[in-house]
Amino acid sequence: MTKKTTREPRLSPLDQLYTRPGFMIRRAHQISTDLFIEACAAFDITPSQYGVLYILFHDGPLEQIGIARLIGLDRSTTALVVKILAERGLLEKTRSETDQRKVDISLTEAGKQCLRRCERCAQTSMEALLAPFDTAERQQFLALLSKFVAHFNEHTRVTLG
Amino acid sequence: MTKKTTREPRLSPLDQLYTRPGFMIRRAHQISTDLFIEACAAFDITPSQYGVLYILFHDGPLEQIGIARLIGLDRSTTALVVKILAERGLLEKTRSETDQRKVDISLTEAGKQCLRRCERCAQTSMEALLAPFDTAERQQFLALLSKFVAHFNEHTRVTLG
Repeated sequence: MTKKTTREPRLSPLDQLYTRPGFMIRRAHQISTDLFIEACAAFDITPSQYGVLYILFHDGPLEQIGIARLIGLDRSTTALVVKILAERGLLEKTRSETDQRKVDISLTEAGKQCLRRCERCAQTSMEALLAPFDTAERQQFLALLSKFVAHFNEHTRVTLG
Repeated sequence: MTKKTTREPRLSPLDQLYTRPGFMIRRAHQISTDLFIEACAAFDITPSQYGVLYILFHDGPLEQIGIARLIGLDRSTTALVVKILAERGLLEKTRSETDQRKVDISLTEAGKQCLRRCERCAQTSMEALLAPFDTAERQQFLALLSKFVAHFNEHTRVTLG
């Protein structure tokens, strides 16, 4: 830490922590989640719940493991999200027709409606998220984020797709 | 969603989800956490645990609420992190000398040692995190992240400092 202080003499130890990339990425995630929940408050939905509805609408029916894989959530979080959405009647589970050991999860009519209604709020939260930036900065930020995520996609605990 | 498909004809619905800023930020956070845990595997420590040790080293002793405020974690997560670190003997709780109702939390000698030993791993994980970028991109990425976080700092559920 002494070394770091020497290299960045004007930053206090707390500011050194606050400007670390990992710290800022965690804050960015908190902010992003909060903005989504705020924008979609009328529908009482989290980004992960929205993601599961979205994946099922476009790629369902899916087993729980398939949902986890496509959305990049760990199994226990996926199980929790599926449980909450099922309790709210937004999705339903049925035995697979081809394999009785498998359980297929799909959207109910209410689930499809919820997703449709949330679409505008999700859009609002995306716009709010990029509000700090001008047009060039938005493109830069998204391009850099995309490069970052693509680079590491194969190396993380939870791999997408 | 039809509208979005029309505007971005080459992206599949899943790729439309994967390229949303909020989705990429969540992935970036997963990646960042994984890289930290991997780099610090020898010390069995998470970024939040590291952050609490760091804050206490530089600003301790602190009450639990003060730790939460300085690190920008919600109270229940902070309570859990403090509990784990206390069980590992890395921090200790004492009644405040000025107010018997308050409990001050500070690092033990083992806690200070752990923080010192983790410092190099934390540095390694920071470097790994920025590996996808060249020098100019690193500066851009950090500057944009910093602008993003600063813009929203007052508006989130968990405000820093």
